[in-house]
Amino acid sequence: MGLLVVGSIGLDDIETPFDKIENALGGSSTYISLTSSYFTGPVQLVGVVGEDFDEKYIKMFEDYNIDLEGLQIIKGGKTFRWGGKYHYDLNVRDTLFTELNVFENFNPIIPDKFKKSKFVILGNIMPKLQLDVLDQLEDPKFIVCDTMNLWIDIAKDDLLEVIKRVHVLIINDSEARMLAEEPNLIKAAKVIREMGPEFLIIKKGEHGALLFSEDKIFSAPAYPMEDIYDPTGAGDSFAGGFTAFLHKTQDLSFENMKRAVVYGSAMASFCVEEFSTIGLEDLSQLKIQDRFREFKELSRFDENE
Amino acid sequence: MGLLVVGSIGLDDIETPFDKIENALGGSSTYISLTSSYFTGPVQLVGVVGEDFDEKYIKMFEDYNIDLEGLQIIKGGKTFRWGGKYHYDLNVRDTLFTELNVFENFNPIIPDKFKKSKFVILGNIMPKLQLDVLDQLEDPKFIVCDTMNLWIDIAKDDLLEVIKRVHVLIINDSEARMLAEEPNLIKAAKVIREMGPEFLIIKKGEHGALLFSEDKIFSAPAYPMEDIYDPTGAGDSFAGGFTAFLHKTQDLSFENMKRAVVYGSAMASFCVEEFSTIGLEDLSQLKIQDRFREFKELSRFDENE
Repeated sequence: MGLLVVGSIGLDDIETPFDKIENALGGSSTYISLTSSYFTGPVQLVGVVGEDFDEKYIKMFEDYNIDLEGLQIIKGGKTFRWGGKYHYDLNVRDTLFTELNVFENFNPIIPDKFKKSKFVILGNIMPKLQLDVLDQLEDPKFIVCDTMNLWIDIAKDDLLEVIKRVHVLIINDSEARMLAEEPNLIKAAKVIREMGPEFLIIKKGEHGALLFSEDKIFSAPAYPMEDIYDPTGAGDSFAGGFTAFLHKTQDLSFENMKRAVVYGSAMASFCVEEFSTIGLEDLSQLKIQDRFREFKELSRFDENE
Repeated sequence: MGLLVVGSIGLDDIETPFDKIENALGGSSTYISLTSSYFTGPVQLVGVVGEDFDEKYIKMFEDYNIDLEGLQIIKGGKTFRWGGKYHYDLNVRDTLFTELNVFENFNPIIPDKFKKSKFVILGNIMPKLQLDVLDQLEDPKFIVCDTMNLWIDIAKDDLLEVIKRVHVLIINDSEARMLAEEPNLIKAAKVIREMGPEFLIIKKGEHGALLFSEDKIFSAPAYPMEDIYDPTGAGDSFAGGFTAFLHKTQDLSFENMKRAVVYGSAMASFCVEEFSTIGLEDLSQLKIQDRFREFKELSRFDENE
């Protein structure tokens, strides 16, 4: 059974203090699918693009063995576009424009052969669409959901409905504080887990990530980076690496989830080393393993001399 | 040979969102000495108090086997006092008042029997005083220095002189960015290590701590705390636990320094669980070991299933 990925596919204009790029491939499910393809298959993508979506990107998805049966290409439609600008402190970004285009009337239709999927990633899109997806699935066993501050702001009721139904929620630290209305992250995690998800992952950017279960916490380090070239897609790459590793290993123990968090962190670190999806292209398994081991070396210490 | 500790000894008025306390024992070398005493001995304290300094605190230092030959008690003088208020976000604190009192004319005199000390902790005091101490030592082998943003602001030249002569500098993340004039912490660490210290520790509060050597980085997790009762002394407790563990083991390898960072983090976590020094009193070795193991469990992951 494949790994079902739903989210946005878009074209991004990105400006950072280092460089700028236009019309670059982006969107949450783009990053998730590419990342996931290094771990498992088939990755089953559900999304929408316009007629302007470059054939070379379709070709690229195919090259990464991504099943596009769930990709709607709207005749005469324009692909979702987003423009963002990062500041010197790359944790701060301004959205310059958002053109929903074909995304405005997107109705995610899950192809029959995807409906039996057991592992699902709900990439960051409108919570209402995430609910539409869940309603079409026959018997999902492991649903991972990513979201963002915007939906906590303007679609909180729908989001709470989604959260109730997922197994893992992935959010960043400021979103966790906002969602739980609690400044202490450890308390916030408890509040959020009581909203439904068995597991919660709080991403903390340059400070790593925390994984929470009912009675355990795992603290993953961040990869030490001197230059973050483009933070776009880091969270999506994390979600892809995390879930796809679990899909591959079919082991949902807390011990294995820790590894999954580290693989997610590793993929996010590749993502931000280059603009757009470039850092995620043509990675070797060896390079991914090496990065995983660097994370291990970074945080390992022994009790005894 | 003992562990030499120099820093402030004071009486604190502290207000947090939970409670307030007046005339509580405080000061950088107070926290450092108490913490250190759990690992090694003798701890040799150099500092100054006034005649108003309560005899019970002297008695307490003695109970913890702290050698007070370097403690000056100024007749008719008043002890250094500090008042601070923490907000709901405990990372933010206001200094309500600072009365230097006997500290104003403090001239740290290192007793002859302390001058041969090989391990030295320069607690957070005026950099000029830290230099005075260094000038009196015969052949220090391992000098650990703590400091704060105030000295980067108003005594940077002296501070740079100190930093040049120490083996380990301990600062927090905002101080590191400020000192290096560089927002990226990994780059900032490089800049600071080029100022002199072989090792640098950057404390990140609820995000743990980073240890940097020339070619290695260690990322220590933070202890997950739902309630931080009083953050005062956390950094000093870290410095004490870190250095005293190294003094005990006499092993300055990077592997052992990692353990020292975790012991420092463990002691800081005890410190903030109670007001003033209360969280550091009457700890058992078992409790410290258990806390160390909790840190290990928090960050450990295995490569293979």
